[in-house]
Amino acid sequence: MKRSLGAKTILYPAPVLVIGSYDKEGRANAATAAWGGICNSEPPSLMVALRESRYSFESIQFRKGFTVNVPSETHIAEADYFGMVSGRKVDKFAATGLGYERAENVDAPFIREFPLVLECRLSRSIDLGSHYELIGEIMDIKVDEDMLGERGLPDPELMRPLIFAPVFRKYYGIGNYLGEGFSSGRRFIETHE
Amino acid sequence: MKRSLGAKTILYPAPVLVIGSYDKEGRANAATAAWGGICNSEPPSLMVALRESRYSFESIQFRKGFTVNVPSETHIAEADYFGMVSGRKVDKFAATGLGYERAENVDAPFIREFPLVLECRLSRSIDLGSHYELIGEIMDIKVDEDMLGERGLPDPELMRPLIFAPVFRKYYGIGNYLGEGFSSGRRFIETHE
Repeated sequence: MKRSLGAKTILYPAPVLVIGSYDKEGRANAATAAWGGICNSEPPSLMVALRESRYSFESIQFRKGFTVNVPSETHIAEADYFGMVSGRKVDKFAATGLGYERAENVDAPFIREFPLVLECRLSRSIDLGSHYELIGEIMDIKVDEDMLGERGLPDPELMRPLIFAPVFRKYYGIGNYLGEGFSSGRRFIETHE
Repeated sequence: MKRSLGAKTILYPAPVLVIGSYDKEGRANAATAAWGGICNSEPPSLMVALRESRYSFESIQFRKGFTVNVPSETHIAEADYFGMVSGRKVDKFAATGLGYERAENVDAPFIREFPLVLECRLSRSIDLGSHYELIGEIMDIKVDEDMLGERGLPDPELMRPLIFAPVFRKYYGIGNYLGEGFSSGRRFIETHE
């Protein structure tokens, strides 16, 4: 039996994305968002939803670029903190001790200690009401070499990305490997045709 | 040391979303997408990225509504299958034996056996190149009663949603509980201020 909960923004899993940007003065900032993900393949693009009031929003509009940094389980406290305070008031890198480097392809910093970075050129900002969707064209992704697995791609079991449950407000790790995509569904094709 | 992998659409975790729609003739269809998520809070909205060529795209434009159904681990084969074949040719409900019901708030079917359903009114279709972002205003969410946990919200440890790794093409389960949001980061606030 299903129960109606009303119009809530609950959808699992959500990612934990740390947005890297330089402000107008060139200070590096990191801000956490759980609403975002890949949205297009040609050109390769992702979207991140941010409120206009966030400091990163202003910086990204000015610099026309940002990075999306995916933390490992080991940096749960830092990732959580990056979403709790504003870079308008605090130097979050100084507070956490994490380091950054300038991205190669966009005018934004990436977080040195996080295993996966997507360098994004701001291609569109779409006003949806409370939030803007920032559409970023992915110019390059960078991965820690020791996170690479099969076919030279980042392996989630090595990376151990955080998983967030919005509204429920809890973090989880990645669990057991369950199967290959475009594979376990084959049995219904064989059965039915 | 980080290695450049070029402009790839790799971002972990991605959700496994099964889109429910009725076609012009009223036949129920289910199609899997990994690119989507919440994108706005007022009005509560989500986005799903679909190619224009997909049958569901056409149906959703016609019906102005769709459902987003989140499968549990137990339905990995069905969820995978829903992304492998087109509803233009096959009755996917007949093939898998899953059932559906008409949504209350939109002209679309939802999947009876999946624990979480979001009923969405199509509010915008945004052309991003290869894909369209379908923005859906969330009219209601429905959850199996036995999946409700703390504060009457769906508990991911009970729901066991699938987690997808795009490009790497593997499914994972949800892992260990790691911590509360807006909580573990507090130690940097106390340390620094």
